[in-house]
Formats: sequence, C-alpha cells, structure tokens
Amino acid sequence: MPKSKMTLGVDLGGTNIQAGLLDAEGKLLARDSTKTKAEEGAEAVLGRVVKLCDGIIDKAKVSKGDVAGMGIGAPGALDIANGVVLEAVNLRWRDFPLAKKLGELAGVPVLVDNDVNVGAWGEYHEGAGKTGKDMLAVFVGTGIGGGLILNGKLFHGHYFTAGEIGHTTVAAHASIGRRTVENLASRNSIVLLLAKLIGANHPSWLVEATGGDLAKVRSKLLSQAVKQDDPLTLEVIGYAAEVVGIAIANTVTMLSLPQVVVGGGLTEALGNMWIKRISDAFDRHVFPPQLRDCKIVASKLGDDAGVIGAALLARELP
Amino acid sequence: MPKSKMTLGVDLGGTNIQAGLLDAEGKLLARDSTKTKAEEGAEAVLGRVVKLCDGIIDKAKVSKGDVAGMGIGAPGALDIANGVVLEAVNLRWRDFPLAKKLGELAGVPVLVDNDVNVGAWGEYHEGAGKTGKDMLAVFVGTGIGGGLILNGKLFHGHYFTAGEIGHTTVAAHASIGRRTVENLASRNSIVLLLAKLIGANHPSWLVEATGGDLAKVRSKLLSQAVKQDDPLTLEVIGYAAEVVGIAIANTVTMLSLPQVVVGGGLTEALGNMWIKRISDAFDRHVFPPQLRDCKIVASKLGDDAGVIGAALLARELP
Repeated sequence: MPKSKMTLGVDLGGTNIQAGLLDAEGKLLARDSTKTKAEEGAEAVLGRVVKLCDGIIDKAKVSKGDVAGMGIGAPGALDIANGVVLEAVNLRWRDFPLAKKLGELAGVPVLVDNDVNVGAWGEYHEGAGKTGKDMLAVFVGTGIGGGLILNGKLFHGHYFTAGEIGHTTVAAHASIGRRTVENLASRNSIVLLLAKLIGANHPSWLVEATGGDLAKVRSKLLSQAVKQDDPLTLEVIGYAAEVVGIAIANTVTMLSLPQVVVGGGLTEALGNMWIKRISDAFDRHVFPPQLRDCKIVASKLGDDAGVIGAALLARELP
Repeated sequence: MPKSKMTLGVDLGGTNIQAGLLDAEGKLLARDSTKTKAEEGAEAVLGRVVKLCDGIIDKAKVSKGDVAGMGIGAPGALDIANGVVLEAVNLRWRDFPLAKKLGELAGVPVLVDNDVNVGAWGEYHEGAGKTGKDMLAVFVGTGIGGGLILNGKLFHGHYFTAGEIGHTTVAAHASIGRRTVENLASRNSIVLLLAKLIGANHPSWLVEATGGDLAKVRSKLLSQAVKQDDPLTLEVIGYAAEVVGIAIANTVTMLSLPQVVVGGGLTEALGNMWIKRISDAFDRHVFPPQLRDCKIVASKLGDDAGVIGAALLARELP
C-alpha cells in the first residue's frame, strides 16, 4: 500500500467501538465512537463499524476513494493470518471471518489484529516507543495485557497469542489465584485485595469515599486515594507495581529489550508514581544489570493508541 | 556462503575447548577437544583453538581450502555484531576482538555467538527442534541458560543478552537468593538444598553414597538417587522441575512458541522423569490452555549441540 494514503483505524471492544481516520503523516483527522451492542449480532456490529467510519470520513471532509484500507483491533482469540475471530466471548463471536466480512461491507481491504497489539503498535510508531526495533507494551486496567514488537514488527508467535504477560507466573508458591501478574496487579485484583483488607478492619480513606461499597472503586478513585496519602492504598498499589516491574524484568531479561511502554486505565490514573515504582522493581530484578538502561516509560497516546495503531497497521496491507 | 561448503564449529568453555568439522549435509566428519588453559592468555588459547581445528581437518582427511568458515560459541558478555568478547570472567578476557583475531590466525572467516545460543541453534537445525520457526532451548546444568530462535533466526535482542531464562523471577516473595529459576533449579541449587535438608536430619540415600560429603554430588549421582527412589532427592528434583516448567510456561505464554528443547548435564542424567515433570508443570501454568500443544522435548545432540550449532552458524557468514 502506498504510504501516502489515508487509513481507518478501529478499536472494537465489547462495550464501545472507537474509530479514527489517519492521514499519511500520522495525524488523526477525525475520531468518533459508538456503542458495540454485541447482543444485536455480528452483522449489526459490522454495520455500526461501517456507519461510524463513514461518519468520520464525512467529518474529515475527504472522499472515501482516498481511504486505502482499514485496520481493526479485535478482542478474544484470533487467527491473525486469516483475519478470523476464533472466539470472542464479550462479542459472542465464534469462527467469524472478520477481515472478509468487514472488507466486503466497507469496500476497503481490512487487516485484523489483537486489540492489545494494535495499541502496542500505535505506541511504537507514534507514541512513547523511540529506541531501537524491539518493544514491549503492557496495559494495566481491569485486566493486564501486553504486546511485543520484535525486529520492527508485531510478534504474534506460532499460535497468534504472544504478549500475554498478565498470565505469567511471578509468585509460584502463592495460593491459587494469587500467582500471576493479573491475579496480583490488575485493577480488579487491587480492588479485591483492598476490599479484603478493609473487611479485616484495616482503615482506609476509601471507606468514607465509597460509603463502604468497595465495588464502586475505579482507577480514578484509586488515584484520589493515592493523592490523599491513604496508607493502605499506597501499600497495595506499591505491591502491584512491584509485581508489574518483576514481570517486565522477566520479559526484558528473556528478550534483551531496549524499551517498555506502560499504559492502560490504571496507569493513566496513577501517572508518575506508578511508573516510578514499576521502574524501581524492574531495576532490582532485570539481568544482566546493564539492562537497567532499558527505558520504562508511560504510554503517550492514551485512549487513541488502539485507533492510531490499527490505522497504522492498515498501511501494512499488501 | 555456499551451503555446499564444510564449516568448523568450536565450543569455547572456561575449562575445555571442543571442536568439530561439519560437512554440507550436516554430518560431523571429525571431532576433538583440548584443555582451554585460560591462564596462559588469550593468544595462547587462540593458538590452541587453531591447532585443535587443524588436527580435526587432518583427521577428516580434507583440505583446509575446503573449509569455508568457523563458528565459535563463547562464554560471557558479547558484542555479537562485531564478534567481540566484552567480558568473560572464566577466560579472563575483556573487550577481546575474538572474530577478528581468530579469523587472522585461522585463515577463515569467523562468526562469534554466545555458547548457549550455538547449542540452541544446533538443536533447532539438527536436533530436537522440528515444529515451526520459533523455539526456546533451556540448558540445565551447574547453572541454567537459554537461547531463543524467533522467525527462524537466533534472537539476540538489543543488548545481545536475550535468553537469560535462569535469571527470571518465579518466586517474587521468597527470600533473596531463592527467587530466580537458577536460584531454585540449577544443579548447584539442588545440591545446596539437599545438603541443607540433610544437615537438618532429613534422611537420604545420598548420605551413604557420598560418605556425608554432599559437595561430591554431581548430576550422575542425583540420577542414581532417583533410581534408588530416594524420597528426599525425588522431592527436591520434582520441585526444581516445577520451577523450570513454570519458567518455560512464562516464556511460551509471552512468545506463543510451538516447541521447547530442554538439555544440559542435569537433563541428560535424569532423562524422561525430568522432562515429564517439567512438562506437567508447564501444562498447569501456560496460557492460553491451547498452548499445551507446545512440544517440550529433551535435547538430542547432547555435548555435540554447541559444536554442531557453531559450525551451522558459520554457514550464515556472508
């Protein structure tokens, strides 16, 4: 595909569809989002994607003929080579030929990749990634996902599942459900641990802030508790950062990476203190010590990483 | 380099130098070894390498002109792109331009790589590796090292240190010195743990076998204790295998690999029971569960992996 062309990027989630149009210089000309409404079925979802994209093309005041292709980040298990969603529980899809169906409907070639991978690709090209041709991206939110760029390309692996850092084990001797990075450091895990500790009479600012209903805690409230210097929240967040730092150290030790981008909702809410704690743990665990030169930085594109990354990936279409 | 040519492979260790001549079909025509004698200095070691190789060429009854190049696996920190040994403690070398110096002395082009990587490359091409273009090799002996093949090539990473699986953390909450794979599962660590437990009055067949001097325990004796069904040895070995299996699961989860080769002195001594235990732990920890399809197999080349891998790598010389 000529790099002078514009491309569309779509971030397909279980709740929302986000999309944007990227010009040849990597500038986001227009952006919009809509509800996924997966319960209406796959055809309806594809219709909503195309309608969303058509609206964006209108908004950007360009002609559809100038759009060379579309990249889409999809959740679940994928056959990336063939653009097929093998299983996406939150979309209720199984063996769905997304690239083919969406390509027919949209009238442009479509490239499908994992939702986390497109975010990693966005950060690699237009965001925080700047050193060399290898990069790990880790996104910490309700869950924890990762994407790998090796030799300047997204690395998918033999089964197209590469990057699942959240499911690596860092505490082999802990009880079941407390062994993996996601078990110990996702926002869900952090909130569960806080609720357990508060239930065991540890005082916390979060009790007054939520009226005692810890189920209400989201990343923003965790960030507020940190700003209030709430000791319990600081301890639990510090513990989660240590776990993320160790998992990153393990990956950098295995792959000798020059850079790691950390993003996701929790990272955006917590900011520098979160990156600092992760980076400190990383330095203590990475091997050989020379790899402390590896840059651990916060994501720069935020919510746009998926849309921008998907649009950039579309440039790789033949 | 024309693949029809013969190449030399050298495995340079702190104690021994092993070398062999490989023909175009990947057959080892001749093989020999000598002492390294690092205390005599770098020039003397290079002289011994060349003498060893000349002897092998004679033994194989071929002409030196038919040898197209030499691959050498070296220990320590390397600048692989430039063939420089940055630091090799057991050789007493620092910033030593191995490829250049050895090439001048031997009269053939020389390619330098890490000693573990050349073993991984040997197994990938001529040994146990047979599925797809990605592979992890893990060698468990006195220490634990690893090598990665990704997209059909050795993966070195930005700092040329990729593959250091022994230094990944699997027990984040354990005491210092008990957190990494090498801390918990190398032969040295296994023997230390056995000595500690025996010192705390746990009975073991190893006490009679060594006359109480546990420092004498090597892989072969551990294998004999397993055959004697010594409960303490079985428990400690089983624990080490669990740790290795978890570390492999972490790597396969990150890289979505189709195959892992497990080798090294301890693996060769323990055989199937060791691979079986590693494989069981791997199955319980890898994610997603579909990756249980990844093949965990014992190395096939044994001591020859380094020599064969180094000779095969020499074919990659320009």
